[in-house]
Amino acid sequence: MSSTQGEHIVSAYNDELTNLAQQIAEMGGQVEVAIENGTRALLRLDRELADVTVLADKRIDDMQRHIDEMAVSMIARRQPMASDLRAIVTAIHVASDLERVGDMAKQLARRSLKIEGLNLQPQFYNGVKNMTNRVQSQLKDALDAYANRNAAAAIEVCNRDDEVDAMYTSLFRELLTYMMEDPRNITACTHMLFCAKSLERIGDHATNIAERAYYLETGRQLSDDVQELHRAQLKA
Amino acid sequence: MSSTQGEHIVSAYNDELTNLAQQIAEMGGQVEVAIENGTRALLRLDRELADVTVLADKRIDDMQRHIDEMAVSMIARRQPMASDLRAIVTAIHVASDLERVGDMAKQLARRSLKIEGLNLQPQFYNGVKNMTNRVQSQLKDALDAYANRNAAAAIEVCNRDDEVDAMYTSLFRELLTYMMEDPRNITACTHMLFCAKSLERIGDHATNIAERAYYLETGRQLSDDVQELHRAQLKA
Repeated sequence: MSSTQGEHIVSAYNDELTNLAQQIAEMGGQVEVAIENGTRALLRLDRELADVTVLADKRIDDMQRHIDEMAVSMIARRQPMASDLRAIVTAIHVASDLERVGDMAKQLARRSLKIEGLNLQPQFYNGVKNMTNRVQSQLKDALDAYANRNAAAAIEVCNRDDEVDAMYTSLFRELLTYMMEDPRNITACTHMLFCAKSLERIGDHATNIAERAYYLETGRQLSDDVQELHRAQLKA
Repeated sequence: MSSTQGEHIVSAYNDELTNLAQQIAEMGGQVEVAIENGTRALLRLDRELADVTVLADKRIDDMQRHIDEMAVSMIARRQPMASDLRAIVTAIHVASDLERVGDMAKQLARRSLKIEGLNLQPQFYNGVKNMTNRVQSQLKDALDAYANRNAAAAIEVCNRDDEVDAMYTSLFRELLTYMMEDPRNITACTHMLFCAKSLERIGDHATNIAERAYYLETGRQLSDDVQELHRAQLKA
């Protein structure tokens, strides 16, 4: 193989890797919009926006399938070495997490159709609204950490997941209180509980993506490193 | 390459494919046990069994990682052709679904710790018990359809998912009724609602696996074929 030909192949390969990263970034963007629309459909009981979100989920599923196929074909054709293989496999996993987040957004949107006509009060919504903002920024930061291969930013996202869980627990208790105060609140608040659960799970997927970003950059599992740090601190 | 050498390589490759299928079958077995233990821990408030289930989930996660690595290494080394590539990629997806089912089992087990000491009544449990039996057999049948590459059996599993959804909806309403009857039931029934939701999601994963089995055997998406059949019926 001539050197020019070799360079040509390497450059085509790099183009493919860049393209894969771009596809993930684009899918991430679509998923962020889906969360925005899903929650807005829920909070405003907006049927049209609910339909838009459900349709968008089909496109997100297609994007995942496409990324999957791209990644598998790259592995088969290029037989990549360790670090590139890691990048490609990580892309498969991140796309899978994003696809699940798309499902959650769809579920939020669909729930707007179920709560129409129920006894809804603004305070039922507030916690859900706050949690949405929080998990949106978690997902955004996780995707940024992934795109920029920033291990420190990835750790940040994982550390903040406890706050999302705490918000969820406190919202859970608050909604139970409304239910106990007045049985007419039960159905609406139950639906809100499930919305809160969907949001908490979006937070978990953001953490997964951040953990993948950490692994991509360092080659180590974040959970292993955290345990080691913890042991070192105990000894000190 | 001599013919014997060629045969040797083909046979080593087939061994790897068989090994991959065995790993999935074993993981499926572990996940079935986890659902059994998770629900039993929940229904009997059995702390010890809850701990066992949480620990088992770590092993299930490890199995997924192992299957992932095996599959990726096979794609990289063997550059498989279409039908083998499909089998290997399907294994990655089935392992991912099984890993999520393991998570659900863990969540069921963990909930047993949260409902201890609450106002629990046998009727809160019945629906959850029935749903557990149903999704267990759904998962078992899906894994069988996958192992035996039986497209007809895969369609059966997908068709029965509507029944699981119907059970969930009816259980949802029933639990709401208990909550409205007596506010002291609210906390316990809310936890049961989440258990029901976890079980419904196990049913969804069983459907995913059945859809993958169908694709593996036919090379077509089940949803596309169902739509086509539906259109043909409308025309007839």
